[in-house]
Amino acid sequence: MTIAIDMMGGDFAPSETIKGVLQYLSEDNSAHTLALVGHETELTRLVQEHSVPQGRYKIVHAEQVIEMHEHPTKALKEKQKSSIAIGFHLLASGKADAFISAGNTGAMLVGALFSIKAVEGVIRPTISSVMPKENGGTGILLDVGLNADCKPEQLNQFAIMGSVYAQLILGIDNPRVGLINVGEEEGKGNLLAQATYPLLKENKHINFIGNIEGRDILTDKADVMVCEGFTGNIMLKFAETLYEISHRKQVQHEYFERFNFEIYGGTPILGVAKPVVIGHGISKAKAFKNMILVAQKMLEKDVLGKMKEELQ
Amino acid sequence: MTIAIDMMGGDFAPSETIKGVLQYLSEDNSAHTLALVGHETELTRLVQEHSVPQGRYKIVHAEQVIEMHEHPTKALKEKQKSSIAIGFHLLASGKADAFISAGNTGAMLVGALFSIKAVEGVIRPTISSVMPKENGGTGILLDVGLNADCKPEQLNQFAIMGSVYAQLILGIDNPRVGLINVGEEEGKGNLLAQATYPLLKENKHINFIGNIEGRDILTDKADVMVCEGFTGNIMLKFAETLYEISHRKQVQHEYFERFNFEIYGGTPILGVAKPVVIGHGISKAKAFKNMILVAQKMLEKDVLGKMKEELQ
Repeated sequence: MTIAIDMMGGDFAPSETIKGVLQYLSEDNSAHTLALVGHETELTRLVQEHSVPQGRYKIVHAEQVIEMHEHPTKALKEKQKSSIAIGFHLLASGKADAFISAGNTGAMLVGALFSIKAVEGVIRPTISSVMPKENGGTGILLDVGLNADCKPEQLNQFAIMGSVYAQLILGIDNPRVGLINVGEEEGKGNLLAQATYPLLKENKHINFIGNIEGRDILTDKADVMVCEGFTGNIMLKFAETLYEISHRKQVQHEYFERFNFEIYGGTPILGVAKPVVIGHGISKAKAFKNMILVAQKMLEKDVLGKMKEELQ
Repeated sequence: MTIAIDMMGGDFAPSETIKGVLQYLSEDNSAHTLALVGHETELTRLVQEHSVPQGRYKIVHAEQVIEMHEHPTKALKEKQKSSIAIGFHLLASGKADAFISAGNTGAMLVGALFSIKAVEGVIRPTISSVMPKENGGTGILLDVGLNADCKPEQLNQFAIMGSVYAQLILGIDNPRVGLINVGEEEGKGNLLAQATYPLLKENKHINFIGNIEGRDILTDKADVMVCEGFTGNIMLKFAETLYEISHRKQVQHEYFERFNFEIYGGTPILGVAKPVVIGHGISKAKAFKNMILVAQKMLEKDVLGKMKEELQ
């Protein structure tokens, strides 16, 4: 399989990206190939400088870069020779099996939604985030911003896609699904949550445990936590500040270190037919390595095939 | 003025309630009277035991108590002689000017919504929470759960009511109003946020600074943070766990102590015609004293009169 990497995306690209590639290739014994997408001259110099072993990578030239601040749709349309646009061309034409980037998030989303098909049966793809649990475990929260308004059927699909991801990638057996809500009892909530509850309750593909509240998000109550992308995005960005504030206030505690979402390496777009992983703009070498590993694991475990199956 | 107090509501009532009353009366030099609502025999014994000075309180007998777990509407209907029901009777009949309780929150909400008129012009009352800011300041978040589904006009009113409260009670001059959203630019967000933005922008009664994101909630960006009650409730309950987790993990830091929402003494229902303050179930003496002080300040500063004026 071939994993394409946007070498130019992110605040520390390409210098940290190449280090991540090197770390991955040094530690991984699989036969997957990396397609390094970026400016050929620069990349050729970088692989030599870092003595990246030959044989498991190829360089794919891209003469443009979509900058972090550019308008996603406009940039993708106008910069057809950018590393992000070319990455999606590789995916769409079958020359790559997965694509990762820490570049312009909006452009990655637009590219994924418009150049790659959705998994059969998916109404709308979703993006998730891991959530560090108080007991040391890891949950998954979704949607975290791709779908600000949702229908109950979408939340029901997020529950399925999140469960497959939790099981195959996070290694959680029979993951417990909780519907994020303002009260515990069935019947509580806004109109969306009220209408979603019965769908989740009837859903044979998931292990639904009922409503969970804001106070349950960091506890061990549920592994897969489902909500629309408005609430999820506010929650995630709030949670991210806990790491920053704890640093600024010099609170030294390993738990708050786990709110540094950069360490998790990136979040996949779930529901598109090929693995697409989006990294934080501030990704460094380890984050890039982890992003490649997530894409690899998604391919090897056939996460998207399993999602398709469960969504039928 | 007369402030009615439910002496029987809360996990530590009436022993902590009477201590809060005593603290208030020892420190306050105003001429306000307290109406202590609860079982007469027990209260008579308690005021004697604690040597509560005579002249500034009266006991109002209530032979029933609505327990914390009871169904609000049902309990209020069936327990007409409960301290909460009688508290609202006093308010509705003009025998009291404000009412506070740390008892059954649902019953307090139902009582406030159905026995007290709304401030003229208010579509729906709201409940708010203070939010401890990283820089030591205090913001206000609303709605935090009374209105899980909202219309743009309601959020516009929350902005006005929150601004009046921030100014008169929290002492923040010209409070900055932020619309909680998933992006900074105008036009971002779910349908509700998109439709609310122009209303806030046109609103001459507030100091609207634009959208704020999840990462801005604990920073100094905005003083009054507006959202529907679904997102607000999830946020508040999530924030509450930060205090608990930091204690369980023995993180000793004053900032996380400020997520102990009990210390703030209670939250008023904004938009009903008389001050109604709801306390945490776990309220102790200091919280009760602070709740009385909030009610007193709302009366003295004519917060509800000012809200009515600004809502025109």
